[in-house]
Parts: sequence; structure tokens; C-alpha cells
Amino acid sequence: MDRVVVALGGNALLRQGQEDTFENVYASSRLAAERVVGLAEAGWEIVVTHGNGPQVGRILLQQEAASGWVHPMPLDVCGAQSQGQIGYLLQATIGDVFFERGMERPVVTILTLTRVRADDPAFGDPTKPVGPFYEEGEAAKLVSERGWAMKPDPHGGFRRVVPSPAPYSIVEAPVIRQLVADGVIVIASGGGGVPVIEDGPRLVGVEGVVDKDLAAAILARDVEASVLLVLTDVARVQRGFGTDDAEELERLTVAEARELLEAGEFGAGSMGPKVRAASDFVGGGGSRAVIADLDAAVAALAGEAGTTIVP
Amino acid sequence: MDRVVVALGGNALLRQGQEDTFENVYASSRLAAERVVGLAEAGWEIVVTHGNGPQVGRILLQQEAASGWVHPMPLDVCGAQSQGQIGYLLQATIGDVFFERGMERPVVTILTLTRVRADDPAFGDPTKPVGPFYEEGEAAKLVSERGWAMKPDPHGGFRRVVPSPAPYSIVEAPVIRQLVADGVIVIASGGGGVPVIEDGPRLVGVEGVVDKDLAAAILARDVEASVLLVLTDVARVQRGFGTDDAEELERLTVAEARELLEAGEFGAGSMGPKVRAASDFVGGGGSRAVIADLDAAVAALAGEAGTTIVP
Repeated sequence: MDRVVVALGGNALLRQGQEDTFENVYASSRLAAERVVGLAEAGWEIVVTHGNGPQVGRILLQQEAASGWVHPMPLDVCGAQSQGQIGYLLQATIGDVFFERGMERPVVTILTLTRVRADDPAFGDPTKPVGPFYEEGEAAKLVSERGWAMKPDPHGGFRRVVPSPAPYSIVEAPVIRQLVADGVIVIASGGGGVPVIEDGPRLVGVEGVVDKDLAAAILARDVEASVLLVLTDVARVQRGFGTDDAEELERLTVAEARELLEAGEFGAGSMGPKVRAASDFVGGGGSRAVIADLDAAVAALAGEAGTTIVP
Repeated sequence: MDRVVVALGGNALLRQGQEDTFENVYASSRLAAERVVGLAEAGWEIVVTHGNGPQVGRILLQQEAASGWVHPMPLDVCGAQSQGQIGYLLQATIGDVFFERGMERPVVTILTLTRVRADDPAFGDPTKPVGPFYEEGEAAKLVSERGWAMKPDPHGGFRRVVPSPAPYSIVEAPVIRQLVADGVIVIASGGGGVPVIEDGPRLVGVEGVVDKDLAAAILARDVEASVLLVLTDVARVQRGFGTDDAEELERLTVAEARELLEAGEFGAGSMGPKVRAASDFVGGGGSRAVIADLDAAVAALAGEAGTTIVP
């Protein structure tokens, strides 16, 4: 049976412009669940992964609001919390859709740690903003009290920035691979997984954010998936993004994808990391990667939608 | 190989009287991890379960402190978050101790849902206090705005109370059983698991708290463990608890344990549910259950410490 790692974008957990109420999050998760079950019906073994940016942001905001009474936890612990939160919603809704369609498939969430290198240059240059916005005075105080790195935000104010190191292996991959081979739908590596470095024989959690799409590529390699499916809210990758000559791409080789990446053809948004993840996976031995709209998931795997990247 | 479900008490995550800083929680978790690895060295297949009361309490407090900016999530979602948080700390520290002792064993955390009955009488009589303390006026407001049940607390003020329904099966048990049979150390059913009821074919999360020891007994049955080990901070169960005639018990049959339970010999604290969980497990076909001090875990399983309950 063919195996796919499905990377869900932010729209899988909250449709754009919606308020982050439980009802809205649940409804979005339910729509994503229908796509995932559609893939299972089409015969795929499935590992689901997802982002956690907005969820961790909310947890950090909640922590700071209560910091007079409850000690805030480090970012790695918050990331693990968000994996529990999001995994629960996805697992519950995926399970529901299976039941409703008369299928029985176990669905489990595996808390995931992602190995990063202690000497990753990202640790010397934190760039990823997380958590609340602060005034300059508060920001300076947090720098001295907690040792945070803070940067001015383009939207005004200051935000904490953390490193975004490159993932190189998924700690739980052997277990995930075995489960998915046994027919279990596995939700894993949420938010890119909690980053850990090796300190002698120990794995030590670090405060950073692993790009979820790059982690999905590593996960797909480590669980021996044949396809990486990156779901987002656009139909196809565009070259010349944001220009008058923008052009939708149906099919790219890894070499072509990397050339366009280098030329900055995908704009400054989140499409770059998605194309890079797809190229990493296919360049590292995967059969193909597809970047497509969430609602076109089944068609995309059948080669009828999205942008396909091949060796 | 013999299989044990180890239920960690609150002291496994924070020693009594300590502040709930990350450093303290990590250090406590590390001590618990050493006990768990000790059991693995003694040849046991292991599923670890744990409470989440203080952690969910802190998450609820954080949610309320930020409720002006972030929509609070229902209790079932908070429970899932706490499973991620605690599972991460236990998994990381257990993994560390294995590595340090030159052993390699995969350790994974499985997000767990626990089935409860929709007609459980507990839903008509919520008794379990959760979250922050409120003044009477605020309490009345929350009753009308959110439909919460609130009760005066013996420590003063009012608290939300939720139902504590009886668990009857663990949704992820088949997967957990397979993993533990493959040599994986599994952390599961944290905080008793997220309670779910069956609504036709669907599983619907409910706002309630499943007693973690009763859930541990169900988990132990469902993963076909031979022993349930309930770890706490006292050496042995006492009959006549709190009286001048208090007497430590080394060994009890299920029938004896149930008789003492009914007579209220274990006091009003948390020992009652532990003895009931032990009796449920052994009465339902388990070989034995042991209630012991965390630090005596290995001796307890060897029959040299704690209170053993036999058929």
C-alpha cells in the first residue's frame, strides 16, 4: 500500500478571518478530517502532520497573562501542549468521519520530538517571532530578566524571536513507521515537533521553532513514505508570485524547483519553505511531492490538482 | 515478559511543597523516570500513566487570565493539552535515564481518550472542583454566562465543579497494547484520559474529569497487564486511617479490600480511589495490584514493599 505524509496548513485548523473559538476550530478541523479520510478511502496509509503557530501563540499569551500566579513554561513545553491540543481535535474529527462512513481505522496522536543540531547557525541568529507584542520598555525588561532575544515587529512593537533550526531526524519515527504499516492513522510532528539537541546521550529540549514543512519532509523520509502532500489554501504554486507575470506550475523537477527557489520566484511568504520541503523530500529519494489546496487533496494525490515535484 | 501499568501520583510531577517552576517539575519528573527505568531493568513491559490535576488547574487559570484576548477552550481540550505537557516531560526524562544507563528503549506518549457512559449518574451531580477560585458574584455570572456548575469551596470562595464519570474502556488500548508488546515504553491515559461518550458512531469529548487511578485499572485490563502498580507518597495503605489504631496493610484479598473500602477505613483522601482501582483490576482478572511509595517501586513489584492486593 502506498504511504503518504500529509502536511496540513494553518487553514486546516482555522479558516482565514475566523475567530478562534472552539466551535470554529472544531469545524475547520472537521473539514480537514474529511480530506484525510478521503485519502484513506483512496487506499493510502497516512501520517498527518500540522502547524501550531497560532496555537502556541495563544498558549504563550495565556501564560504571560497569568504569570503573576503561574510560572510560565519554556517554549518546548508549550509546543508539546499544542501538540496535545491540536492532535486531540484532529484525532476526534478524523475518527468521527471514519465512523460515519462505516470505516474502522485507529487514529492516534504521537507526541513528537525532532532532532536539530546544537551547532545549527540558527541558534546564533534567532529570527522566528513568537508570542505577544510588547512595548519597547517591557521588551528591554524581558531581555534582561529572561534572556530573551527581542526584535521590532513590522506590525509595530517588539516580539520575542527564537531560532528556527533545521530538522534532521524525527525521534519517534521508528514507532510511527510501524504503526502506519499496521493500518493506524498517525498524527505526528505537530508544529514541526519539539526541537531537541543531543547532549552526549541525552536529548535536550530547546526553545525554538522547527519549520513544520521541513519537518514533514524529514518525517516522510523517516517513515518511508512514497509521497509528501503539502496542503495549503492555494490551488498551485506560482512562479513570479506577486508579479503581473505570475504563472501557475503543474509539474516541476527537483532541479527546476531549486532553481526557482534560489531566484526568489515564490515570494517572501510561506510558499518558499513548502517548495523547499518538497524538493528536500524528492531530492532525498521520495517518489514525488505535491503542493495543493486542502479541498483538492484526493485529486492532488491522483495527479489531477496541485503542483507536483518529481525527481 | 510480564507487563505492568504504573500509575504515577502527583508527587511524581512535583514534590510536595515545591513551587511549580519548570526546574522543579523537571527534577521531580526525572526522579520518577529513574523508578520507571528501574522497572524496565527488572524486566517489565511498561505503560506509564499519571494525573494532571494541578497542570489542568494551571492551564484553566491561564485561560481565564487571558480570556479578554483568547477564547478559552473547553475542559476536554485543556486535558489534551496537559497530556502533551506532562507526557513530554516524562518521555524526555525517561529517555534520558535509559540513555545514561546504556539502554535503548523507545518511549512514546499516546494522546488518550477514555470512554464513559452518557447516562453515568455523575453527569447529573458534578462534584469535582477544577480551575480558579471565584467570589460569589463572579461565580453567579459564570453560571449564567457559561452554564457552569459552581459550588462553595471548603477553602473559601467558589469553584467550578464538573462530573467525574466512571471510565469503561480506553479508546487507544489496542494500539498501546501492540506498542508495549513490541518493547515500547508507552505513556498514556494522562489525567485519566479525555472523557468521551458515544453519540451514535461518534466519540464526543465531554467536560469532566475521569479519576486517574480508576482509568489506570481499565487501561491495565485493556492492555492485558498482569500487574497494576499505583505509586504514591506513602509506604503502605493504612486501615483506620487518621485514628490512633491506624495499621499498615501488607496484603489484602479483593474481598477484604472492598469490605474495608465500604467501611470507610481509608479516610476521605485519595487512598479510597486507589484501593478501589486496585480492587477493580484484580477483581476483573488481574493477577495483582500494588500500592506503594514512588521510591519503592522496584521493591513493590518484587513483593517487598507496599500493599499488595490479590484475588
